[in-house]
Amino acid sequence: MNIQNLSREQLCERLAALTEKYNSYKALGLKLDMSRGKPGTDQLEITNGMLDPALLGNYKASNGFDVRNYGILDGIPECKSLFAEIFGVNEDNVIVFGNASLTIMYDYIAQCMIFGAGAEPWAAQSGIKFLCPVPGYDRHFGILEHFGIEMINVPTDSNGPDMDMIDELIKDEKVKGIICVPMYSNPTGITYSDETVRRFAALKPAAKDFRVIWDNAYCVHHVTDNHDKLVNIFEAAKEFGSEDIFIEVTSTSKISFPGAGVSALAASDANIAAIKKRMTIQTIGYDKINMLRHANYFKNLDGIKKHMLRHAEILKPKFDAVLSAFENNLAGKGIAEWTNPNGGYFISLDVYEGCAKRTVALCKEAGVTLTGAGATYPYGKDPEDKNIRIAPTFPSRDELCKAVEILCLCVEIAAIEKILG
Amino acid sequence: MNIQNLSREQLCERLAALTEKYNSYKALGLKLDMSRGKPGTDQLEITNGMLDPALLGNYKASNGFDVRNYGILDGIPECKSLFAEIFGVNEDNVIVFGNASLTIMYDYIAQCMIFGAGAEPWAAQSGIKFLCPVPGYDRHFGILEHFGIEMINVPTDSNGPDMDMIDELIKDEKVKGIICVPMYSNPTGITYSDETVRRFAALKPAAKDFRVIWDNAYCVHHVTDNHDKLVNIFEAAKEFGSEDIFIEVTSTSKISFPGAGVSALAASDANIAAIKKRMTIQTIGYDKINMLRHANYFKNLDGIKKHMLRHAEILKPKFDAVLSAFENNLAGKGIAEWTNPNGGYFISLDVYEGCAKRTVALCKEAGVTLTGAGATYPYGKDPEDKNIRIAPTFPSRDELCKAVEILCLCVEIAAIEKILG
Repeated sequence: MNIQNLSREQLCERLAALTEKYNSYKALGLKLDMSRGKPGTDQLEITNGMLDPALLGNYKASNGFDVRNYGILDGIPECKSLFAEIFGVNEDNVIVFGNASLTIMYDYIAQCMIFGAGAEPWAAQSGIKFLCPVPGYDRHFGILEHFGIEMINVPTDSNGPDMDMIDELIKDEKVKGIICVPMYSNPTGITYSDETVRRFAALKPAAKDFRVIWDNAYCVHHVTDNHDKLVNIFEAAKEFGSEDIFIEVTSTSKISFPGAGVSALAASDANIAAIKKRMTIQTIGYDKINMLRHANYFKNLDGIKKHMLRHAEILKPKFDAVLSAFENNLAGKGIAEWTNPNGGYFISLDVYEGCAKRTVALCKEAGVTLTGAGATYPYGKDPEDKNIRIAPTFPSRDELCKAVEILCLCVEIAAIEKILG
Repeated sequence: MNIQNLSREQLCERLAALTEKYNSYKALGLKLDMSRGKPGTDQLEITNGMLDPALLGNYKASNGFDVRNYGILDGIPECKSLFAEIFGVNEDNVIVFGNASLTIMYDYIAQCMIFGAGAEPWAAQSGIKFLCPVPGYDRHFGILEHFGIEMINVPTDSNGPDMDMIDELIKDEKVKGIICVPMYSNPTGITYSDETVRRFAALKPAAKDFRVIWDNAYCVHHVTDNHDKLVNIFEAAKEFGSEDIFIEVTSTSKISFPGAGVSALAASDANIAAIKKRMTIQTIGYDKINMLRHANYFKNLDGIKKHMLRHAEILKPKFDAVLSAFENNLAGKGIAEWTNPNGGYFISLDVYEGCAKRTVALCKEAGVTLTGAGATYPYGKDPEDKNIRIAPTFPSRDELCKAVEILCLCVEIAAIEKILG
């Protein structure tokens, strides 16, 4: 039953019935949160073993260094080696940081603002811009807006961003970079195709101080058995000698503990040197006890992969609950489309054009908190007001089922209201 | 025996004897390090109990928040409360950060550079300056030099910096701040007198965007039974309404684990708001598991004080070893002066004028690494080339005794060489 084919009378009838159902939900005084990509408590439990002090042995890193004391700027060897394996790069091209890749990105852009990226400081160049594949990650946009960097939307499909458009836009030397999540992207869950990654590697920006922030947050975060594969950007860049434009980051926030994990960066020799130069002033070193905990608990990439299977076990039923509710309640109605990702933390829902804000507001009133409409676009402005990021991980499966049912109801109510005008 | 009263012949004889002794030390191929303010391994051992996961209970902070998950920007309540007690301020005026107060200071100055401190960004104002009480902390100077902020030396005596000079210098609106260690200062170990703190509180800088970085790194780090007392800067500032110019920081780096501790900042309501505005973009929150570990291990300021007695027990004999070696080998010779601090991590040694570099080089050749001569001054330039920072904490007592004996020898050799010309 495509809603758009219904008569005005049928729509009014349907709206009345849906509203009655909606009001009965509202009366329950629910408090359900699907707003952020937070692991559920059940996911946190599986890593508790990492807090066993026996894992720290005699507190010595593999180079004999006491992890309890000052020193080691770029991370203990075994933790660098773990991330080198994850990134698929040489250990010398890895720096291990503190608890958040968000902070790595913020600090890197701050560094470019004050000291530049091999050219004049960005802050001293007026009108600089970044390209933002959309829909995208609100905290990325937050950083760019904070620094007064103009953001330009680049549409994304299932292969990644529109690379023809990017090739055109980077002819402007005021365009200083791109920020993106290339694998299990936030919020669509898509992974950039081999061809897209190859075209990133082949970029020929006019700006000499151009940087791609390659936020590989979900590089091992498979949910289904069907694993996406992302081409190694530094491998691809070799062919074009473009290694210097890529800054890749990741973290264990959604592998071990959000906020108490370890983050890392991969970059070219030149970029590593520039970043270390800043770091020697900013810190004596990050938390090495936590690095040793992580390195000894996971041991290697294989250990991480095994651990991620346990997360997937918990997440798969939650993703399925959302997807089957969408299928059951929204399919064929002509008012919504959604992604069906193999991994990551989100499902992207496109509602009837002009209805995202209204849908989120209706949900809110009924006690279901969603990510704000517009959050997946720079400046919080979704030009078609239709994208909603669904974060199914934090609620329990029961809460989730209830929340999604209400969401589907709100999607339809908002769409009918819109059609009725 | 004042060296300066000896005849040329006596000096030559003495130099020959000392050099022979020096060469015999050199032949031992020693490798002793007194360069950095690092706790010794024995000090690290006393905090191992903090790594017991039982301390984390059910992973809940006092507000019911799961410390393993995302959230809480400014620190868990019990950790804020612990630092509020240490700083002597309201909990609302505290933010708990990651592992290093150095990073807090770096990030705060970066914030002022890019966004200003209530006025134009510092980076957009040419020729800005900071006042640096000397001798001081090399990493402070490192931050200022990194950001291209001109540093002006302000001499310090046992009461703190020359406040008359500071009152004069801050009439220049290009002078944007002061960075200092007010208690058990690095490297002199002196604590600012009540009158000095009061005069800080009464400062009337011409710059509207003036800031004092009050690095209270050693606020509970007593070594002797005779504890220095520092007037609470925010209490003092109340009288003058100058709260907004003070940014106070501290950390548990030398209480629990260097690099795996918790750091914090105290500031006025306005400054806290400005810093949080930046933080919401830079991070989702710092490591709350580590905060809970610290809060539950120490419980309160009293718990910290008890813990610091154990550090003092280890440190006192080390400080005494240095001081008695100085007394035995250098007193009355007219070639050296040193401080006798009640706490902190350093002893400041002033050698014969023009001899600090030579002394450090002689030590290095004999296998004793000291903090580089000049490090205690901005740009590494000690105008009189006489100050050496002694860090007695890291070596074992035996190593320390050996190292200091060699140091004393080098001090005298360098002085005699200088006098002989």
